[in-house]
Amino acid sequence: MNILVLGGDGYCGWPTALYLSAKGHSVAIVDNFLRRLWDHELRVQTLTPIAPLNDRLRTWNRLTGKTIQAFVGDITDHDFLLPTLKEFEPEAIIHFAEQRSAPYSMIDRKHAVFTQVNNVVGTLNLLFAIREGLPDCHLIKLGTMGEYGTPNIDIEEGYIQIEHNGRKDVLPFPKQPGSFYHLSKVHDSHNMMFTCKIWGLRATDLNQGVVYGTVTDETSLDEMLINRFDYDDVFGTVLNRFCVQAAIGQGLTVYGAGGQMRGFLDIRDTIRCIEIACLNPAGRGECRVYNQFTEQFSVLDLAKKVQVAGKKLGLDVEINHLPDPRIEAEQHYYNAKHSKLINLGLKPHFLSDSLLDSLMNVAIKYRDRVDHSVIMPTVNWREPNNDRNLQNRSALPHRDMCGLSSSR
Amino acid sequence: MNILVLGGDGYCGWPTALYLSAKGHSVAIVDNFLRRLWDHELRVQTLTPIAPLNDRLRTWNRLTGKTIQAFVGDITDHDFLLPTLKEFEPEAIIHFAEQRSAPYSMIDRKHAVFTQVNNVVGTLNLLFAIREGLPDCHLIKLGTMGEYGTPNIDIEEGYIQIEHNGRKDVLPFPKQPGSFYHLSKVHDSHNMMFTCKIWGLRATDLNQGVVYGTVTDETSLDEMLINRFDYDDVFGTVLNRFCVQAAIGQGLTVYGAGGQMRGFLDIRDTIRCIEIACLNPAGRGECRVYNQFTEQFSVLDLAKKVQVAGKKLGLDVEINHLPDPRIEAEQHYYNAKHSKLINLGLKPHFLSDSLLDSLMNVAIKYRDRVDHSVIMPTVNWREPNNDRNLQNRSALPHRDMCGLSSSR
Repeated sequence: MNILVLGGDGYCGWPTALYLSAKGHSVAIVDNFLRRLWDHELRVQTLTPIAPLNDRLRTWNRLTGKTIQAFVGDITDHDFLLPTLKEFEPEAIIHFAEQRSAPYSMIDRKHAVFTQVNNVVGTLNLLFAIREGLPDCHLIKLGTMGEYGTPNIDIEEGYIQIEHNGRKDVLPFPKQPGSFYHLSKVHDSHNMMFTCKIWGLRATDLNQGVVYGTVTDETSLDEMLINRFDYDDVFGTVLNRFCVQAAIGQGLTVYGAGGQMRGFLDIRDTIRCIEIACLNPAGRGECRVYNQFTEQFSVLDLAKKVQVAGKKLGLDVEINHLPDPRIEAEQHYYNAKHSKLINLGLKPHFLSDSLLDSLMNVAIKYRDRVDHSVIMPTVNWREPNNDRNLQNRSALPHRDMCGLSSSR
Repeated sequence: MNILVLGGDGYCGWPTALYLSAKGHSVAIVDNFLRRLWDHELRVQTLTPIAPLNDRLRTWNRLTGKTIQAFVGDITDHDFLLPTLKEFEPEAIIHFAEQRSAPYSMIDRKHAVFTQVNNVVGTLNLLFAIREGLPDCHLIKLGTMGEYGTPNIDIEEGYIQIEHNGRKDVLPFPKQPGSFYHLSKVHDSHNMMFTCKIWGLRATDLNQGVVYGTVTDETSLDEMLINRFDYDDVFGTVLNRFCVQAAIGQGLTVYGAGGQMRGFLDIRDTIRCIEIACLNPAGRGECRVYNQFTEQFSVLDLAKKVQVAGKKLGLDVEINHLPDPRIEAEQHYYNAKHSKLINLGLKPHFLSDSLLDSLMNVAIKYRDRVDHSVIMPTVNWREPNNDRNLQNRSALPHRDMCGLSSSR
């Protein structure tokens, strides 16, 4: 199958592209390298030293004999996007090419506007390009579980049957997103649902939970194929960040009470879910929604798991409750359905001690690259301008390893 | 009260600004004249010959002694918006400054992207400017009843209590908008709800129905104060368009079966609803939603009313069913609640024969300005590119008055 991975140089996109290529699909990547640029803007680096895309792709070809083509450009530029689709003729497009950090979108007005315009326009362009150039192509779009917020009722997969005043209808599940980023995904979902209806497009909206892990069978083949591992407060997802904190002897930064419940999944399940969506395309005119996660935990649950796993490695891990920089319920009901991908064959990698060990070992391996100053939260949801906090980050990362060397 | 009317040169904004000024409020207008530019782009003109804003404002001052200040600029330009708010210090901001035509947003990709970026960025800027400069200011934002679509259950005012699997919550009413324009309003609604929550802003989202009429007590004081009257297929709202068609002897263009039910209101009720919202501000952190319409009709109901009214004026009015250029249910359940503004004191102007007479008389008065070639639908929801249809409009309006002169 011809599969185009938009954002194929990123944290989820890169291992997805490799996995699909390994499975024998004809894969191409579209990327504009904005994700790498944001590292420079925020003065952070991925824990793992990732190679330039060109070197990554050459290595993949050398090791496997398989070629992944790269199209360098921005999907908000329609004059780039449409000819790219026409040239590669994908049967499925995996759309990871969005700004995906909630804190980044909450830095200030410019970052909020950028996030929404970038994500909404990119997706609109894609919908038009598919309609104009490849109307039968299946769009697989990454949404987020954060679109739903934390309602006091069970969360269904995209749609809910509502009975009201004696009448019934199946309607889009109400959305209560918690950042300008999450809002951008809600906007995308509405735009996609509409174009499936009017143009008969095929779309799958994958409302993904919080991803953890970094290693897949493919990325571990060679150091040049290594995946990103973000641990900073802006792009680091919570479990990855906790593992780095444990490895370097920094207390785990739980925001508020830590009762925030979220859906989580291993990055190896991300790539498998994408494959499942590709192999089972949506029908013409169908905008189906899958909740893409495998387990739900509270943030405090995760911190305690990391604490226990750390102890086994001889690490003394403290849990620190910080004032929550976000506006969110710190204790709430949460029960989100996630059976559709399981029914299509997903066999989850549940969160295990060995995975936590492996993540902490990655952190230990690259501990000289850890910048301790970029982990504490700098973006406060209550403030309309957090840019100054980011500017005030220590310019020189301090390399004090805290209690790590003594505890090992 | 200091009231800033964004989009104060437009169809709803202009009579609102005059009305609030007449009531003794200190009123200022913000406008960038894009609405006038779109007339040129689409090769259409308002039926009524509107004066430049400066002449309008001078006339108002001469007749009433009252001054309405004008700030010329674009709210998508934050460097213009924030200082304007700080200078005028409004207690309420009425936000009409959006691209408001569904067909315009459906012309092609550029118009879709423009509509969503223009509307979403303008509103985001406004939310940030209020947070940064005037956190106590009440934002009164025009939404649309079209955000809800046509669900098979009763439509509530913004929120609905849902009982599901034995649990309950009050959640945003699910949205099923029917054009890229309507989608932009849904995006705005989500963005507003979020900023009220995180920053404690005060907001009223007025989900307005289809407006008809053109004359208010204030606009009729002088020819220089006359309001817009759009009858073209892109910006003309349905009842206004029907009245012009009746007056010039053109058959009424009902799209499809005509069973499309919508909420409608007289423009005199628009301005009164705005006043009611100003006088009863939302609380801090509250994003309340009012459904702003007074009666619901099907499109065919309206056509028949115009036919009857036309007969009294000696006009022979045909009803033509065209293939529906939109994708929408042509027969459906529709019951939308609209009691909140009534409870706050709105006394509706229900649609009457005399209003229809008056609209047709406006059309007759200005019939030499009617361009017959701009009424038939040129924008088809099924097509991703309708620009060529618009370009093919006859360059010279043909002034054949059809059966009108003979029937009077």
